[in-house]
Amino acid sequence: MNRSLSQKILNASGAEALVVTQPDLRFYLTSFESSFGVVIADAVSTRFLTDSRYLEAAKSSVAEGIRVEEYPRGESLASLLGGYKSIAVSLENTPATDYLALKSAGYEILNSTPAFEECMAVKSPEELAAVKAACVAADNAFIALLPQIKEGMTENEVAALLEYLMRGNGASGTSFSTICAFGANASVPHHETGNTKLKFGDIVLIDFGCKVGGYCSDCTRTLLFGDDGRHGQFKSAYAHVLKAHMLVKEKFTSGMTGSQGDAIARDYLKEHGLDKYFTHSLGHGIGINIHENPNLSPKSNSVFADGMVFSDEPGVYFEGEFGIRIEDTVTLHNGRVVSLTDSDKSLTIL
Amino acid sequence: MNRSLSQKILNASGAEALVVTQPDLRFYLTSFESSFGVVIADAVSTRFLTDSRYLEAAKSSVAEGIRVEEYPRGESLASLLGGYKSIAVSLENTPATDYLALKSAGYEILNSTPAFEECMAVKSPEELAAVKAACVAADNAFIALLPQIKEGMTENEVAALLEYLMRGNGASGTSFSTICAFGANASVPHHETGNTKLKFGDIVLIDFGCKVGGYCSDCTRTLLFGDDGRHGQFKSAYAHVLKAHMLVKEKFTSGMTGSQGDAIARDYLKEHGLDKYFTHSLGHGIGINIHENPNLSPKSNSVFADGMVFSDEPGVYFEGEFGIRIEDTVTLHNGRVVSLTDSDKSLTIL
Repeated sequence: MNRSLSQKILNASGAEALVVTQPDLRFYLTSFESSFGVVIADAVSTRFLTDSRYLEAAKSSVAEGIRVEEYPRGESLASLLGGYKSIAVSLENTPATDYLALKSAGYEILNSTPAFEECMAVKSPEELAAVKAACVAADNAFIALLPQIKEGMTENEVAALLEYLMRGNGASGTSFSTICAFGANASVPHHETGNTKLKFGDIVLIDFGCKVGGYCSDCTRTLLFGDDGRHGQFKSAYAHVLKAHMLVKEKFTSGMTGSQGDAIARDYLKEHGLDKYFTHSLGHGIGINIHENPNLSPKSNSVFADGMVFSDEPGVYFEGEFGIRIEDTVTLHNGRVVSLTDSDKSLTIL
Repeated sequence: MNRSLSQKILNASGAEALVVTQPDLRFYLTSFESSFGVVIADAVSTRFLTDSRYLEAAKSSVAEGIRVEEYPRGESLASLLGGYKSIAVSLENTPATDYLALKSAGYEILNSTPAFEECMAVKSPEELAAVKAACVAADNAFIALLPQIKEGMTENEVAALLEYLMRGNGASGTSFSTICAFGANASVPHHETGNTKLKFGDIVLIDFGCKVGGYCSDCTRTLLFGDDGRHGQFKSAYAHVLKAHMLVKEKFTSGMTGSQGDAIARDYLKEHGLDKYFTHSLGHGIGINIHENPNLSPKSNSVFADGMVFSDEPGVYFEGEFGIRIEDTVTLHNGRVVSLTDSDKSLTIL
């Protein structure tokens, strides 16, 4: 967001200079979206080097205190860093070829990923506003979608319509490919949206998100397209998944770990014999990327804090029969969970 | 597409085993889309290891001769490769952390990227059919879009509508975020689609593509939304860009290099004093990814061959005034260029 942010990450990484080539991390530091460029921060300055396509726009909108310069055409990254002995890069996001080129140029290479992850996990007020805007766009699009869902539409058609409506509600695009699953397809947690046609009595599971101002939303709803009277087991499971979802909102607080959060939902589902159908983690961090740290999973030691944004998404999957997932994007504020997506979660029968 | 493909790349890489973790390269070898898994090919077998979410679907649809197995939960990649001394990975697409983990486990690591690039550049008949299907979906969507473009619509609305229409024409999604630029915005080659509203007399530049069967299309059209009589310079430049585009189709043949192809367009534009406004390369390879090898650029030594798929996209940009780009996805067949996208390129005035 500004020079102090790159300084903070530089200091935490312990290198002479922070070198950032990844589009998402570059955007995080500069507040400017670009497909090419590098941020170089040292104790004295933070510079953003990019090509001629982006120069003018970058100069007028880059975050405070960051100098914009033209990237010398054809120059290798290693040769741009002549003065430094040690540099910090995000090793998890740097291709091995780039790493080897920097290494063979003689730089000592430290890893900036832990510092980035720690910083990015807690959102600033501006970041929270962008996530909230993405959540509102998704909510509004979903509400507009419901009356347009008709018998005979394919999963692809419903997904395409929802994506169109999110754009119409201010999104710049999706935060991931919309998952739309009809009937037994809902029992596959990552069903590939296809040409299955909607018929009366089908379960409809839609997992969708969009981006506004560079930040993501993530939301899942499960509903019934008409009630053919054969959904007793589904309705009972739905009530339990919703209860698990709500218990997390009620009981999870700042200071707790990701595994404690996951356990709130998992323990409740276990009491009702459903834990073996809950085959994934409770949630994941959300921000510039749709999957970020920290995670809410049985093994997560991450301590949650105010300003973190993550998903609360318990689900159960009965292979070949049905699946249910209920997901909101949420944040922690004054120690408590606040929902950012907020469309109706009581069982909807269209 | 099948075991012989992984064998070919394994042999070219010179390692005991080929190890593939990248989704696009995995899809290339297995014909199966997945977000998690690894392909391990050695002289004896090609195995695809993935998690329980994908097992059943993979077994029923993976390419011939490839064995599907469950990825042992929690196992590191290095520990799965116990028997090998040397392995080939795509260093350009492997995170430094993964590279370092394999290295410290004692493997000799060779680079599979050159072999992949060479193989992937020339498309099989099945791959060509998928690219063609993506091109047809994009063409049909664009034709359906034109009569729906109205004064006052925003760039975002037009882009969203086109993306919706591509999905409706059989696309699984876009191959990149649609670029839609009105008026002077068209003078920025990579304009960020925004909320500018369409008015009478505006230039409209739309760069769009979609995916079918895992393969991409790429197409750009520039048109006028009404003719306000102030477009003499634009019309003259349009005719030259179209001529440059067509000359490439006429004169570029199998056996020529990327720089020779680029020069066909660039030399023609130079004769007409327009080369200094042609600020990017003529084209890029297209396949599973929207930007692949080989390139058509002033420095490209790549020799083009039958079955390669690439863009022919000359453009000129008059800063703050207007921009023009005319792009088709094309292939080489019997030595000559064949267009795969094919909607009308004569100047359209809506």
